[in-house]
Amino acid sequence: MIEKVSIAGSGNVAIHIAPALVHAGVKVVNIYSRNLQHAASLAISVGATPVDQISLLDDNAQLLLVALPDKVIPEFASELKQRGNFNGIVAHTSGSQPLSVLTDHFISTGVFYPLQSFSRFSQPDIKEVPFCIEASNNELAKELSELARRITGNVRFLNSQQRAIVHLAAVFACNFSNHMYALSADILEKEGIKADILQPLIRETANRVGELHPGMMQTGPAVRGDFQTIDSHLKLLEKFPELTPVYLLISKSIAGWESRVKDRITKS
Amino acid sequence: MIEKVSIAGSGNVAIHIAPALVHAGVKVVNIYSRNLQHAASLAISVGATPVDQISLLDDNAQLLLVALPDKVIPEFASELKQRGNFNGIVAHTSGSQPLSVLTDHFISTGVFYPLQSFSRFSQPDIKEVPFCIEASNNELAKELSELARRITGNVRFLNSQQRAIVHLAAVFACNFSNHMYALSADILEKEGIKADILQPLIRETANRVGELHPGMMQTGPAVRGDFQTIDSHLKLLEKFPELTPVYLLISKSIAGWESRVKDRITKS
Repeated sequence: MIEKVSIAGSGNVAIHIAPALVHAGVKVVNIYSRNLQHAASLAISVGATPVDQISLLDDNAQLLLVALPDKVIPEFASELKQRGNFNGIVAHTSGSQPLSVLTDHFISTGVFYPLQSFSRFSQPDIKEVPFCIEASNNELAKELSELARRITGNVRFLNSQQRAIVHLAAVFACNFSNHMYALSADILEKEGIKADILQPLIRETANRVGELHPGMMQTGPAVRGDFQTIDSHLKLLEKFPELTPVYLLISKSIAGWESRVKDRITKS
Repeated sequence: MIEKVSIAGSGNVAIHIAPALVHAGVKVVNIYSRNLQHAASLAISVGATPVDQISLLDDNAQLLLVALPDKVIPEFASELKQRGNFNGIVAHTSGSQPLSVLTDHFISTGVFYPLQSFSRFSQPDIKEVPFCIEASNNELAKELSELARRITGNVRFLNSQQRAIVHLAAVFACNFSNHMYALSADILEKEGIKADILQPLIRETANRVGELHPGMMQTGPAVRGDFQTIDSHLKLLEKFPELTPVYLLISKSIAGWESRVKDRITKS
């Protein structure tokens, strides 16, 4: 059982995972960051020792969680191999990096990817966050999933290819929907209407995502083929020339989804 | 004070508003539907009398709420004028129909528009639903807002032009974001991954909408200018040819928003 963990990184992922581990009774040994102050401020809150050099990582930890920005992980892995004397499991927390960025350098490797957008703005309940596990062998996958189960009720096994697909799907479901919220706020603010008027509707739409395929719950003029309303929206959009192509393309995509997918789902 | 209300319609809006009125101590007099069975099943649950003919509407009600599909409202209004002997206030519950569809026929008219997507799939808390009020005179606007305040904590005054803008913004924030959920579910299901893996992330993204402009909380490769990830996503999307134009256009729109709007908001 994994009882001692070090974390490389002091950003949003590290800030949320470190206290969850401590809460689950896991000892956090080191927090590593190139910036010692950043390492220290997180380390203090979880009773760990901050380090700013890879060579200072305590070999006492069974697992090093690499919670660094995606781009930095390959470079960090090769540095860790060169300078470190760390012999435990090395696992990263990235959705987009394959496991191979670690297997190139180490024997016992894994992925420990929390599928959530952590930020200063909110505190999602970590017990509901899906943790996506992958490892260089089955025994290790079991160990990492056991660790994950101590902090969440939602553990999934995904290989690197599946994780890449989940990451892509999350861009649609979250990054793109957030952009739709942004465009709607622009429209409202330009007309002097407080954007919070849409808050309950936005939350209800998101909360409805569940058992049924979201396409089956699609509402609005595009899915109804209500061209009268679409025309009146296009007229209002004359004030927002950048938004017209977005409105048209997504409306077309909704109509296309209806004819392409809905029948198949209904029949299955 | 409005104490007696009749409702034309037995669809999702009527089904949610009628019991909320009863709960607030308002007497629901009649439920009208062309289909008497539909009228009856709602009427029974709120202690009202079902009617399937306009001429049967009891003149005893002070307000007739027209909760019919948007398209049908103009026709219903002219029929009500011709055949009805109803002398109270006539108000509709539509986001997209202007007040003028009623003022053309009646003296005391209004709009009583709940900005929420009601469905069989969920039970949003009506106390948080924004009710958008408009009326043919100030006294009436006050009366309708007082009625709304008995069922919700969120009452707004919007004229017909503003309500059309809100309706347009809701298409972006809700219809379009729901379509993004649908596309992400398609991507996951094609790869054999259960779509519920994204549920916590979708909810967190929606729940974060609040004080800050959503554009300020944008995450993902497009806002980071991370072309390496965008390229890898486009490669994965080769299996989903219909989704590539959507991915590209929204990514471009996110990047454009950053350069166009973010500076302005930050400075203000």
